[in-house]
Amino acid sequence: MVATVKNGSVGVVEAQSCTFAYPPDELVLENGEKLGPITMAYETYGKLNADKSNAILIVHALSGDAHVAGLSKADGSVGWWDEMVGPGKAFDTNKYFVISSNVIGGCKGSTGPSSTNPKTGKPYGIDFPVITIRDMVDAQRHLIDHLGIKRLLTVSGGSMGGMQVVQWMVSYPERIKSAIPIATALRHSPQQIAFNEVGRQAIMADPNWQGGNYYGGAPPANGLSVARMVGHITYMSDISMAEKFGRRFKNERQVFKFTPNFEVEGYLQYRGNNFVKRFDANSYLYITKAIDYFDVTEGINIGEIFKGVDARVLVIAFKSDWLYPAYQSQEIVRACKLAGIEVTYCEIDSTYGHDAFLLEITEETHLIRYFLEKVHHGELTEDYEI
Amino acid sequence: MVATVKNGSVGVVEAQSCTFAYPPDELVLENGEKLGPITMAYETYGKLNADKSNAILIVHALSGDAHVAGLSKADGSVGWWDEMVGPGKAFDTNKYFVISSNVIGGCKGSTGPSSTNPKTGKPYGIDFPVITIRDMVDAQRHLIDHLGIKRLLTVSGGSMGGMQVVQWMVSYPERIKSAIPIATALRHSPQQIAFNEVGRQAIMADPNWQGGNYYGGAPPANGLSVARMVGHITYMSDISMAEKFGRRFKNERQVFKFTPNFEVEGYLQYRGNNFVKRFDANSYLYITKAIDYFDVTEGINIGEIFKGVDARVLVIAFKSDWLYPAYQSQEIVRACKLAGIEVTYCEIDSTYGHDAFLLEITEETHLIRYFLEKVHHGELTEDYEI
Repeated sequence: MVATVKNGSVGVVEAQSCTFAYPPDELVLENGEKLGPITMAYETYGKLNADKSNAILIVHALSGDAHVAGLSKADGSVGWWDEMVGPGKAFDTNKYFVISSNVIGGCKGSTGPSSTNPKTGKPYGIDFPVITIRDMVDAQRHLIDHLGIKRLLTVSGGSMGGMQVVQWMVSYPERIKSAIPIATALRHSPQQIAFNEVGRQAIMADPNWQGGNYYGGAPPANGLSVARMVGHITYMSDISMAEKFGRRFKNERQVFKFTPNFEVEGYLQYRGNNFVKRFDANSYLYITKAIDYFDVTEGINIGEIFKGVDARVLVIAFKSDWLYPAYQSQEIVRACKLAGIEVTYCEIDSTYGHDAFLLEITEETHLIRYFLEKVHHGELTEDYEI
Repeated sequence: MVATVKNGSVGVVEAQSCTFAYPPDELVLENGEKLGPITMAYETYGKLNADKSNAILIVHALSGDAHVAGLSKADGSVGWWDEMVGPGKAFDTNKYFVISSNVIGGCKGSTGPSSTNPKTGKPYGIDFPVITIRDMVDAQRHLIDHLGIKRLLTVSGGSMGGMQVVQWMVSYPERIKSAIPIATALRHSPQQIAFNEVGRQAIMADPNWQGGNYYGGAPPANGLSVARMVGHITYMSDISMAEKFGRRFKNERQVFKFTPNFEVEGYLQYRGNNFVKRFDANSYLYITKAIDYFDVTEGINIGEIFKGVDARVLVIAFKSDWLYPAYQSQEIVRACKLAGIEVTYCEIDSTYGHDAFLLEITEETHLIRYFLEKVHHGELTEDYEI
């Protein structure tokens, strides 16, 4: 959402990647299948300190990637959370070593459905196994191992990123000192599943989808665009749409045609069309499914979810976020409290809806800087300024 | 939503229709174009009294039709608001003469894009003019003239039906004694427009749409189904989806495929598939556009909208309706108050979301019976029972 580079940029950054050779270190997925070799695309900012105690993992949302901060060496693009990661920023790269990676199942360098299937020499397509949030986190754990980090200072992300944060708490509590889940949930609700399913149906209804075997031909652009349009409605709020677009027409007056007439229609079409240039439709299917299957409450008492977790937690929600309503963040807080975890909850009074986690930089920065300082040093140090 | 016939059914009803021969009585549309001849499909229940003072017009929502009550003689189907219209019901056919008609632009007997264009002898397709809520109401006024009714006792409907009610107040205040707009608005908001636009884009992205000229061939079923799925999400609420589906799987356990797996996915697909059997995709385009253009506040002070209206008004909204939130109904109330209209507002505490107007029968019945009794007689008569 933010395209300007302010003071405190990490500068030009280069994409990195590592590939885990399997066997013997095959990734056994939650559904029992095995996946390998796995390539993980990642970026790092700042410096790892001597005792490796200052490493932070940032995890991305549905359409994100490893390029969180700075200017991409490859294409000059600005990272998706650049205002939050850099010298003097919330995730202060003068103090912390920040790692980010593209999720498996994605299409931004990590292994996903558009990657080559070693068994066939062709793209996986829908032969790619269905992966889960737990699988994404397992792959990230391999990357953290590869970087020689025993325990992360924190893991943070919003939306699907927040689900990965929650999953880190469940899967690898001993590997994190703290966690910052933002605008997220312990499980995906039926309404959230329903919106994802509409997007999937739109993609699969596009004849170009070809059962997922469209690589080398025209992608299912119309279907993916419709899926993204649905998404964008859910990322904004009734009030933010009223503030941004109102009922304004793109042209001077009503033209009475089925081409986009209202500004909001033009915006959605623009967003949809842009998305198909940068995202793979099959990744959209796999990642939304992973989100929908996410449910750390399944078959377990809420008080048991985080049992044994020895980490401080900062939970952030936004009042106008109706896609991941605040009550879902409050459930995370409740699960933490029941497990005896020291948890801080903050509900930011924003009108931006779910997008707020990308836009409410000032408040998030204040909360996160303070929290990290306390986690890192046990208390506030002299150089901490509000 | 309601498929059982209770005591108090109007019984078997026959579809009626009338065709207005133009010229000279051509319908001049809001965009300046002329449309004719216009056929209006309608049904009536109960008997018109001698002084023709007991006539009620029921107007339908996006996918509704003239078959409001009783059992269709043609196909045995139950009317869409059968629990509200019949002997002893909210709209009591022992007392009132109830009329309902299919909107122009529709596909249930009234003239719409699937009707034959007299100039070409073929279906209009997208040569059908873009119509508005005002045009729909103008056509209804012709029907009311045809039936010899000078003044309606009331006009009532929910959702897009409510917009027609509001439009009756604006266009023909002298023809109505009262009005009951339910779960509706003075204007469509950008979020509401956005959801409709997603549906339209899904239809137009379907290659079977063929620029609207699909009659005689396969209809754009996939696109229309996706549009309907989006709609159904907005008609329910977060809580009603949680209560109805939760995270239950259709099958015994997670199967990890892209076929519908969760119950909520199966429900949406079922709803989408059923809809394409009974609705014309071009009508979906035209009717949603009419809804999106609806804005009786355009270029006018809110206090002036209902100036000169001499009608009692009952406004009903539902707490969990996030598609047409209660604040929009409260704006109708405000516009009424500013115009000196006697208005009653009731916000029903339902969890059903927007669908509540079809489901909260008991509360609606109580409110509407009482209101109509007062409007009809000026006071409660002895035979009124709560």
